[in-house]
Amino acid sequence: MTAQAGRVVFTRGGLAESVHTVHVAVVDREGRRVASCGDADLITFPRSSSKPVQALPLALSAPDLPPDELAIACASHAGTPEHLAVVERLLARSGSTVDDLRCGTHPPFDPGVAADLIRRDEKPTPLHHNCSGKHAGMLLSCVLHGWPREGYTEHGHPLQVRIRELHAELGGVPLDDVRVGTDGCSVPALALPLHGAARVFARLAAPGGELAPALERIFRAMTAHPFLIAGAGRLDTTLMPLVPGLAAKMGAEAFYGMALRDTPKGPLGVAFKIMDAGERARPHVALAVLGGLGLPVTEEMRALAPATLHNWAGREVGTVEVELPSLRG
Amino acid sequence: MTAQAGRVVFTRGGLAESVHTVHVAVVDREGRRVASCGDADLITFPRSSSKPVQALPLALSAPDLPPDELAIACASHAGTPEHLAVVERLLARSGSTVDDLRCGTHPPFDPGVAADLIRRDEKPTPLHHNCSGKHAGMLLSCVLHGWPREGYTEHGHPLQVRIRELHAELGGVPLDDVRVGTDGCSVPALALPLHGAARVFARLAAPGGELAPALERIFRAMTAHPFLIAGAGRLDTTLMPLVPGLAAKMGAEAFYGMALRDTPKGPLGVAFKIMDAGERARPHVALAVLGGLGLPVTEEMRALAPATLHNWAGREVGTVEVELPSLRG
Repeated sequence: MTAQAGRVVFTRGGLAESVHTVHVAVVDREGRRVASCGDADLITFPRSSSKPVQALPLALSAPDLPPDELAIACASHAGTPEHLAVVERLLARSGSTVDDLRCGTHPPFDPGVAADLIRRDEKPTPLHHNCSGKHAGMLLSCVLHGWPREGYTEHGHPLQVRIRELHAELGGVPLDDVRVGTDGCSVPALALPLHGAARVFARLAAPGGELAPALERIFRAMTAHPFLIAGAGRLDTTLMPLVPGLAAKMGAEAFYGMALRDTPKGPLGVAFKIMDAGERARPHVALAVLGGLGLPVTEEMRALAPATLHNWAGREVGTVEVELPSLRG
Repeated sequence: MTAQAGRVVFTRGGLAESVHTVHVAVVDREGRRVASCGDADLITFPRSSSKPVQALPLALSAPDLPPDELAIACASHAGTPEHLAVVERLLARSGSTVDDLRCGTHPPFDPGVAADLIRRDEKPTPLHHNCSGKHAGMLLSCVLHGWPREGYTEHGHPLQVRIRELHAELGGVPLDDVRVGTDGCSVPALALPLHGAARVFARLAAPGGELAPALERIFRAMTAHPFLIAGAGRLDTTLMPLVPGLAAKMGAEAFYGMALRDTPKGPLGVAFKIMDAGERARPHVALAVLGGLGLPVTEEMRALAPATLHNWAGREVGTVEVELPSLRG
């Protein structure tokens, strides 16, 4: 049996109505486990929380890339005109266009932009896909490394092979332990143990070795451009400016990664997975982990994860309670 | 310890990526447990799955109400013009208007109607709230019973007191076991053990006693007007026409109730709760329960709960697997 998992309980009328289960791993840059909750060995997919690693071949091959373009390559963006302008600039660097993007299409995450498209009777394009910056970065990465742009999303493409190797190296796990699926945007989705995903973020917090300059530029790009990483009202964007030395990245199905430069225990990497994909529990867990690691949790931060639930008429109907029993490890 | 709960596993690349936990109770009209999975004694909120009971005072006091108006009183509707026309007709019977509705306001569930409002630069009204039919029915119920319309959503209002008594009576549980919270539309949300919620649906499947004629009319109204109960592409609406003798009702936070008239074990009531509120698992569990009870699961039904997952580019990325270990009880 693994240690007791964490829980996020949504109550109504004093009863637990719904319960989300969460596993958490916190490690230092050597991969030593500083704290955990539940199963730190859980093999799972960071999904878009892998984007800082997926952008690493780009950072390595384009040392002079402007930070906003590096940030958009790490982003799950909301499809606003500001996001799209940076994607288009990055795309142009490899002589690519929207037609070269293989991410597919979905309505923009930003509700205002989605409404604008409806008002103008326009359809979203692959540029609006939250991963279009990552894909634009991958296309440029191919050109700079001398790899074919053709088939850049395929599992056997040299870029994707390299990204898998980087996951193993940064995660401190054997290559065979990095399992492969297909992501929402058709590139390989890579799974690794939760402690390994945490170590990836610890390396981003405290870069070392040959990869250090590129990791440092990624960390700085993410923290300098929190809006580009996600969008208005979304967790990465709102949390990063409130926590000094934090680079944070959401992944689909309620994954979260945090690179923390400045904690009482030094630089740390955090990874957690809400097992039932309950995205609404994520800000609550993020704040509980930060608090558990001894970081101040301010009122502004608490506003991102309200402990009181209200209904459509504005009436108070319940609470949200976070239990991370063994987090202090 | 309770029996092993059910699971709905979303896989990617052959790995379990996310897991939903489910508790199921199946009882006959006397409340005898025919089958269960997990904790049939779980005290939880049926939420909108309570609507057939919340409409019972209306059915009792308005024996000549047209079935479509009774159906909309049982509905979590999608806010289309067809739904709103029936709500307005029901509302007019008590001399009420949209201003008397206390449900609050949210954008219509139907994406096309939501887009139409945006295109016309209009805001949703309380009529678009998925519970507006229930509230219109409650207002008429007050008038017909001689209760004040004022304060009809309050916990101590005679209508709400009567609805709580009906939950206890139909659920076969002591009144004190019917716990009270506040729902998304501000009326009391009533919690009862899962087996009690299943018995409510068993009574709808096989009405008896004094309430029989009103329950029968509710069952017929729901099954005759599946579109009014939810809307295009939504589970109640799509499933009811495919399963002879089924009245089904979704509730928020991934609750589900099914009244089954025609099973190999006679009329049955089913209630299940996906503990983590994972709505996407609901059609999968519903079909597994129907199949487990010996009902045919056709290709048309399977299309409501695809076992294969595709990404934005249409590529196959994973599967959905349902495990209800002890369902045959």
